[in-house]
Amino acid sequence: MTDRRLHLNAFLMPIGHHEAAWRLPESDPNANLDIQHYISLARTAERGRFDSVFLADSPVLFANPERRPSGKLEPTIILTAIATATERIGLIGTASTTYNEPYNLARRFASLDFVSGGRAGWNIVTTAGDDAARNFGLDGVPAHKSRYARAAEFVEVSTKLWDSWEDDAIVADKEAAIHADSAKVHTFEHEGEFFSVAGPLNVPRSPQGYPLLVQAGSSENGKDFAALYAEAIFTAQPTFEEGKAFYDDVKDRVGKVGRDPRQVLILPGIVPVIGDTEKEARELDAELARLISPEYARRQLAERFGLRPEQLPLDEPLPENLPSEDEIEGAKSRYTLIVQLARRENLTVRQLIERLGGGRGHRTFAGTAEQVADTIEHWFHSGAADGFNIMPAVLPSGLEKFVDGVVPILQERGLFRTEYTEATLRGHYGLPRPENQFTVGRAFVGLATQP
Amino acid sequence: MTDRRLHLNAFLMPIGHHEAAWRLPESDPNANLDIQHYISLARTAERGRFDSVFLADSPVLFANPERRPSGKLEPTIILTAIATATERIGLIGTASTTYNEPYNLARRFASLDFVSGGRAGWNIVTTAGDDAARNFGLDGVPAHKSRYARAAEFVEVSTKLWDSWEDDAIVADKEAAIHADSAKVHTFEHEGEFFSVAGPLNVPRSPQGYPLLVQAGSSENGKDFAALYAEAIFTAQPTFEEGKAFYDDVKDRVGKVGRDPRQVLILPGIVPVIGDTEKEARELDAELARLISPEYARRQLAERFGLRPEQLPLDEPLPENLPSEDEIEGAKSRYTLIVQLARRENLTVRQLIERLGGGRGHRTFAGTAEQVADTIEHWFHSGAADGFNIMPAVLPSGLEKFVDGVVPILQERGLFRTEYTEATLRGHYGLPRPENQFTVGRAFVGLATQP
Ligand SMILES: Cc1cc2nc3c(=O)[nH]c(=O)nc-3n(C[C@H](O)[C@H](O)[C@H](O)COP(=O)(O)O)c2cc1C
Ligand SMILES: Cc1cc2nc3c(=O)[nH]c(=O)nc-3n(C[C@H](O)[C@H](O)[C@H](O)COP(=O)(O)O)c2cc1C
Repeated sequence: MTDRRLHLNAFLMPIGHHEAAWRLPESDPNANLDIQHYISLARTAERGRFDSVFLADSPVLFANPERRPSGKLEPTIILTAIATATERIGLIGTASTTYNEPYNLARRFASLDFVSGGRAGWNIVTTAGDDAARNFGLDGVPAHKSRYARAAEFVEVSTKLWDSWEDDAIVADKEAAIHADSAKVHTFEHEGEFFSVAGPLNVPRSPQGYPLLVQAGSSENGKDFAALYAEAIFTAQPTFEEGKAFYDDVKDRVGKVGRDPRQVLILPGIVPVIGDTEKEARELDAELARLISPEYARRQLAERFGLRPEQLPLDEPLPENLPSEDEIEGAKSRYTLIVQLARRENLTVRQLIERLGGGRGHRTFAGTAEQVADTIEHWFHSGAADGFNIMPAVLPSGLEKFVDGVVPILQERGLFRTEYTEATLRGHYGLPRPENQFTVGRAFVGLATQP
Repeated sequence: MTDRRLHLNAFLMPIGHHEAAWRLPESDPNANLDIQHYISLARTAERGRFDSVFLADSPVLFANPERRPSGKLEPTIILTAIATATERIGLIGTASTTYNEPYNLARRFASLDFVSGGRAGWNIVTTAGDDAARNFGLDGVPAHKSRYARAAEFVEVSTKLWDSWEDDAIVADKEAAIHADSAKVHTFEHEGEFFSVAGPLNVPRSPQGYPLLVQAGSSENGKDFAALYAEAIFTAQPTFEEGKAFYDDVKDRVGKVGRDPRQVLILPGIVPVIGDTEKEARELDAELARLISPEYARRQLAERFGLRPEQLPLDEPLPENLPSEDEIEGAKSRYTLIVQLARRENLTVRQLIERLGGGRGHRTFAGTAEQVADTIEHWFHSGAADGFNIMPAVLPSGLEKFVDGVVPILQERGLFRTEYTEATLRGHYGLPRPENQFTVGRAFVGLATQP
């Protein structure tokens, strides 16, 4: 275990993960549209030797634009701009398998991998919500199970596209007038339930072979999908016990499908609110809670539960008879997490909203840099995490405090790199470059073991 | 006419427009995958005060990868990287209306417009060819007319998405906890033949309102589409007479639908092969012709005609009984141009291949910088062009020769800017920022006049 290394990902919610962060005096309320803001955040994370930065996404105007900055530039565009302004840090972007075509998306990630010299990662999501569906010709969101089935086929087709050029296909022989060996460029004519795609891709195999495959849904379907395809997993785990149980469950599933559990990294989220003293941290936390608009937050909560806002009186606990996870076709695992959190801690709707306003169900932690480092070390050493998804409540200040305060402590304790030793995102995470299925005659390990 | 200004766009075919350019000793045969190569080309064009750079595209591996570098990074990714490394030059990328969804594409161009500070342009194409269709679940390419009908609805939906946030929707009032005025953020619920899209876009209105709308198909359907929607038109015109006729025809169509013909700029392509002397230029041209592989080129030509390669003997003229344009469902206008060129000049297949190898039907011109400037001035002053699409046969050298040789002559003659005077792509082309249809209560002029 001594050479086991901690991994850190910076989850860049533009103005911070706390929904009221934009209202602080220090915040630029339009930073979400400012590419220099993202570049500067990524440079801070790179200074802290983070493995990667990460952008969430969905193809819909989430939330009420009245309530918080809701405009989102498209992640592969932001990450390309970051790529040109950084050297080493990995670049993970979210894209939906429900509302994209494999040819276009696989190509975009291969392009980003070229532009960044092997630093691209794809957070594979299935996109909950009827509103997104209505931007793509549908009346409502397809069933959860069907979304995950499409996601599986989407990844399978994508790996065929990324492998469609073998690594040594390009010969570039000017004399012989041969640019590529066309026997090593494969038309594969995939025909499946959701897609028929002939190939080859119009981009040769990229530096990493595939972008790093990341997954972030924690329902049963989500965990099964992750066991087969994911190389890194983002997850919301509000307590150590839940985090440990999730970790063991997923590693077990990974082993059961015949993959090496060490090659699937589990990164729970943490929302650190850092102060020079614990008191200072708690004050910032309280200030943020005060800035939440409970009416807006309640409306969003009600939507998640399929209720009207009036059905959730602010100073009462959640109603008794909420639907079970089975009845939810949106984001299943987050729904359950929220209901359990409220029940366990006996929270009123108002208190629940304050808890969610910070981390939306992720572990929030107000304290000193030392205390944050202790929590991280505890989870890491007790087998509840391979690393963390750092979700600063306020940006850029929260990330700066983490990089200047927490990272040096983790480095001193020998838990975290002091310099980059690798050039690619897969390299940072200690993951191999995938073999080419057309060269070796068998598919990506996740696909090869698909039941 | 004195303040009429010439416009220049640099069409960046990675290693040059001549299909054998990669075989020259000076060429890097893998520059098509090297983002620094594109950045350096764009900086050269910016040094020459070009209005814009342009990238062609289609979502398929075109041509035989054996024959020439055929890998293509995705244009909005390349243009984003260029945006971060340049200040003023416009960035025009091609994207297909047949193989994209409006929500995703409109968002990507809006994002590029933000990242570049108002320099994005979209070359709207319908994508010919069965091979592309087979990457998107279809057996063959949809009919030409139907592709253009989808393109029209695609643009209409896109303008609704780009307008879905009014320009003053964002108030960012921290005190009142109001980020945007939600009465100015519009759900529009478009329901049409091809798309149903609810909106709003998840990106506020971008610096230019819309990206510059560019079009590049010259069939009857293509010209009608351009008259309604295009603000700039790329076109292949091999002779002055054809160029003049096209120019008059399109401006006439623009006027007929009630738009101002001065606000639709026509940019024919020119492939300049520039030498210090005419002799040197002709020698480079001949060297390039010698490097073409006629077998590969013939295969591609045969495909365009729906024939087998053996049906096109290299040293005979084209067969008599070729299909008419009506029977072609692919790229109609380019097909007709090629057949007419061969017939008019009585070319054998081998000679035709040499002619097309350079410019694929665009006007090629081997000569001195002075001679190139003369041609440009002639077309511009005789009302056959509002500017030119500069398509260097070899890159980067061909663009450098143009910028260092031709541009100063055009500037001396008072035809071309010596400094940028505007910050946006629309500004460079002298085109207005479109009004917002939800603010003014009527659609984009092209859409408003749709029959
Ligand atoms: C850190 C983290 C980031 C996530 N980012 C996204 C995202 O960007 N887009 C998205 O649609 N879902 C995202 N999700 C997943 C959703 O929260 C939700 O879990 C998912 O849509 C449905 O998965 P499930 O039903 O399997 O739980 C993320 C989850 C986590 C833990
Ligand atoms: C300068 C220029 C650039 C073009 N670029 C593209 C392109 O990138 N992708 C594409 O599918 N068609 C492109 N076209 C259009 C095709 O050549 C062809 O004309 C079009 O696919 C079909 O249009 P038509 O049938 O209306 O002639 C371009 C045309 C010109 C003149």
